[in-house]
Amino acid sequence: MLRIITQQADVRAELQRICDRTHDEQVLHKEATVREVLQAVKRQGDKAVLHYTAEFDKQTLKAEELRVTGSELDAAYQQVSKELLGAVRLACRQIEAFHRQRVPKSWVHFGDDEVVLGKRYTPVDRAGLYVPGGRAAYPSTVLMNAIPAHVAAVPHIVMVTPPGPGGAINPAVLVAAQEAGVQEIYRIGGAQAIAALAYGTETIPKVDVITGPGNIYVTLAKKLVYGTVGIDSLAGPSEVLVIADETANPVHVAADLLAQAEHDPMAAAILLTTDAALAKNVQLALERQLVDHPRRIDTEKAIAHYGLIVLVESLEAAAELSNEFAPEHLELEIKDPWALLPQIRHAGAIFLGYSTPEAVGDYLAGPNHTLPTSGAARYASALGVETFLKHSSIIQYSQTALQNVAGAIDVLATAEGLPSHADSVRRRTQQEE
Amino acid sequence: MLRIITQQADVRAELQRICDRTHDEQVLHKEATVREVLQAVKRQGDKAVLHYTAEFDKQTLKAEELRVTGSELDAAYQQVSKELLGAVRLACRQIEAFHRQRVPKSWVHFGDDEVVLGKRYTPVDRAGLYVPGGRAAYPSTVLMNAIPAHVAAVPHIVMVTPPGPGGAINPAVLVAAQEAGVQEIYRIGGAQAIAALAYGTETIPKVDVITGPGNIYVTLAKKLVYGTVGIDSLAGPSEVLVIADETANPVHVAADLLAQAEHDPMAAAILLTTDAALAKNVQLALERQLVDHPRRIDTEKAIAHYGLIVLVESLEAAAELSNEFAPEHLELEIKDPWALLPQIRHAGAIFLGYSTPEAVGDYLAGPNHTLPTSGAARYASALGVETFLKHSSIIQYSQTALQNVAGAIDVLATAEGLPSHADSVRRRTQQEE
Repeated sequence: MLRIITQQADVRAELQRICDRTHDEQVLHKEATVREVLQAVKRQGDKAVLHYTAEFDKQTLKAEELRVTGSELDAAYQQVSKELLGAVRLACRQIEAFHRQRVPKSWVHFGDDEVVLGKRYTPVDRAGLYVPGGRAAYPSTVLMNAIPAHVAAVPHIVMVTPPGPGGAINPAVLVAAQEAGVQEIYRIGGAQAIAALAYGTETIPKVDVITGPGNIYVTLAKKLVYGTVGIDSLAGPSEVLVIADETANPVHVAADLLAQAEHDPMAAAILLTTDAALAKNVQLALERQLVDHPRRIDTEKAIAHYGLIVLVESLEAAAELSNEFAPEHLELEIKDPWALLPQIRHAGAIFLGYSTPEAVGDYLAGPNHTLPTSGAARYASALGVETFLKHSSIIQYSQTALQNVAGAIDVLATAEGLPSHADSVRRRTQQEE
Repeated sequence: MLRIITQQADVRAELQRICDRTHDEQVLHKEATVREVLQAVKRQGDKAVLHYTAEFDKQTLKAEELRVTGSELDAAYQQVSKELLGAVRLACRQIEAFHRQRVPKSWVHFGDDEVVLGKRYTPVDRAGLYVPGGRAAYPSTVLMNAIPAHVAAVPHIVMVTPPGPGGAINPAVLVAAQEAGVQEIYRIGGAQAIAALAYGTETIPKVDVITGPGNIYVTLAKKLVYGTVGIDSLAGPSEVLVIADETANPVHVAADLLAQAEHDPMAAAILLTTDAALAKNVQLALERQLVDHPRRIDTEKAIAHYGLIVLVESLEAAAELSNEFAPEHLELEIKDPWALLPQIRHAGAIFLGYSTPEAVGDYLAGPNHTLPTSGAARYASALGVETFLKHSSIIQYSQTALQNVAGAIDVLATAEGLPSHADSVRRRTQQEE
């Protein structure tokens, strides 16, 4: 049963508890395992990757079997339905169109005294995408990671995903990878896959940036290799916060909450509403929709532990609580969502109105579904083209321009006790004695 | 003596050794100390901060003495020279002008069927800036961190810096903070300062993003708290790579190499040149400039361990080696730097021509001097306004638009085994039975 509490209760503590649900004390123990895997792969390459694939994924492979072949890709196209291929292609087009908007462009500014300043954007040489296996092997994950890399014009896009029985990979995942421009696919997963991408092995190329979600081992490995390579974020379990008023449809709100809860027993689904009747009706609708839910047990767990309805006094109060929680997904199922939008400061993605369930953004609206979780929306954003781009500052001074600032640089460098800094300017601007 | 090697020698291995100079095996040991500090501050707040300030910084302070007062700021203005204040203000203006260019703006796109998609940019609520103490207490560090936060319109900008004898802070640092819009300054440093900013204490506010350079303890602390808060990067020791041809002035090139080496015994200074005579002349000029260098011992260490001149066959070969090294700072002291620029893929900042020593960018050209080190320019960029901004995706679908994609979402959600995802769309688009 989805709990209903009022704003008078200790709402902030409850929301904090839900936000902090991933900070588990076992992390340190798991980190030791992950460190061992990283070190082994760094030192022994393929040998270690194959060892851990046998140990953790229960698949005995040879190094030459790690890479997915062209004929496997062809076979995957035979295995997926025409409808699924069509849906993947529609999603591809819409995600690409969105990501092509406002891609950062190189620029220079010509100032006084022939000073030229600017930024030059370039893609990383190699991107590595992690796609989870098993129940969470989602073609949409592939699209949301590969398409931004493709739009950023990354020359080499590599994907890794854990092997299933017999080394098999979900055909929908393979088709999505092909459609989204992935060039190489390796059947490896877990911390050993992150290590292989970060350090390189005989078979798997070292990349510059690693993106994509994974379990706690993958996330810990990404955190540990950060600095050796770039990463997108440290993804936690998914979450939705819905703000609804008396005009919302309780059956739809309940479905949206369940669409989050069904991901994972750690998923969070929160409703903030001004209307007590809606609260009650969502609670009832959710119970009914759970009855024959194919993932009932896990979904109920999520609802029981990290589900919550809060009765709030006003939409403004709801916006403020939402800002404190900084949800990954925020739905505004209210009469005038655009009026509330200016009060929303922290949210990964915002879904406005009655006809915008989160699922539309999960699959094909266009914006990325890889979003900051567990309060990270306070400081982080969706994965995007920028994840695969970086820029170099461009600076060109003329002799005149340097002369004009030489005195100021001398004063600053001297104050900082850096004589050669001052000297490098002085020697260029003062007559040699 | 700065070594000269030819491209035939194992140049790549040498450059790799220099690039990897921070990956020291003692890190794990230090990490244990840092973890302990983080845990203590998280649990005990001010008490732990004061304890570690006494232990590591040798300053016994009370909680109410941590914050720098208005009268201390006033006193700092009396202590700095008129020239230094003028130079700080000139730097402020130029840094601010550069950072105000191309600040990301919120946007929406109105598509078919009343679909609205976009991105809304908002600043973080609170930024925390770390400024090192002691010999590396640089006013320029303050400006380069605080001004982007100020341009991003961050409402609360907090600075921390370790206390010197009697709790004193370098007056130039205090003046720079005031000029750059910092609102609160606390005299704490090290891992305990990072912990205080990440978790908050009775006295020090919890922030959303922490930026700024520091020693290995600070860097490890930033890596460990990443995920609880955002961070700018994991800064290592500084480095410069100069590409010079026969037209470069060897005295200037030598001064530029020393300007890097004087920072730190771990700093790296590399020259790639097509001209053997220049190589020899830079080597000699550098020896001469070192003779009465006030930081001679440390600077010589850097030059001996991480200094290198490589004779290359062509500028193209130099560009390729530079890309592999991905330097923090790259100087192009060649006849036509703009002709070589398209071949440069990875560099934090690029200084073009004979009159653009790195020092001009370190202090006041405008672009940020907080740049990716140790090869991180392969995937990362300068600190900037973006470091303090994040965006929310905006998605609004109409009933018609949802109807048009309902089939595709159904296929995708079903393929991914997420029935409530499909259900949340189906219930909105199908006639209720």
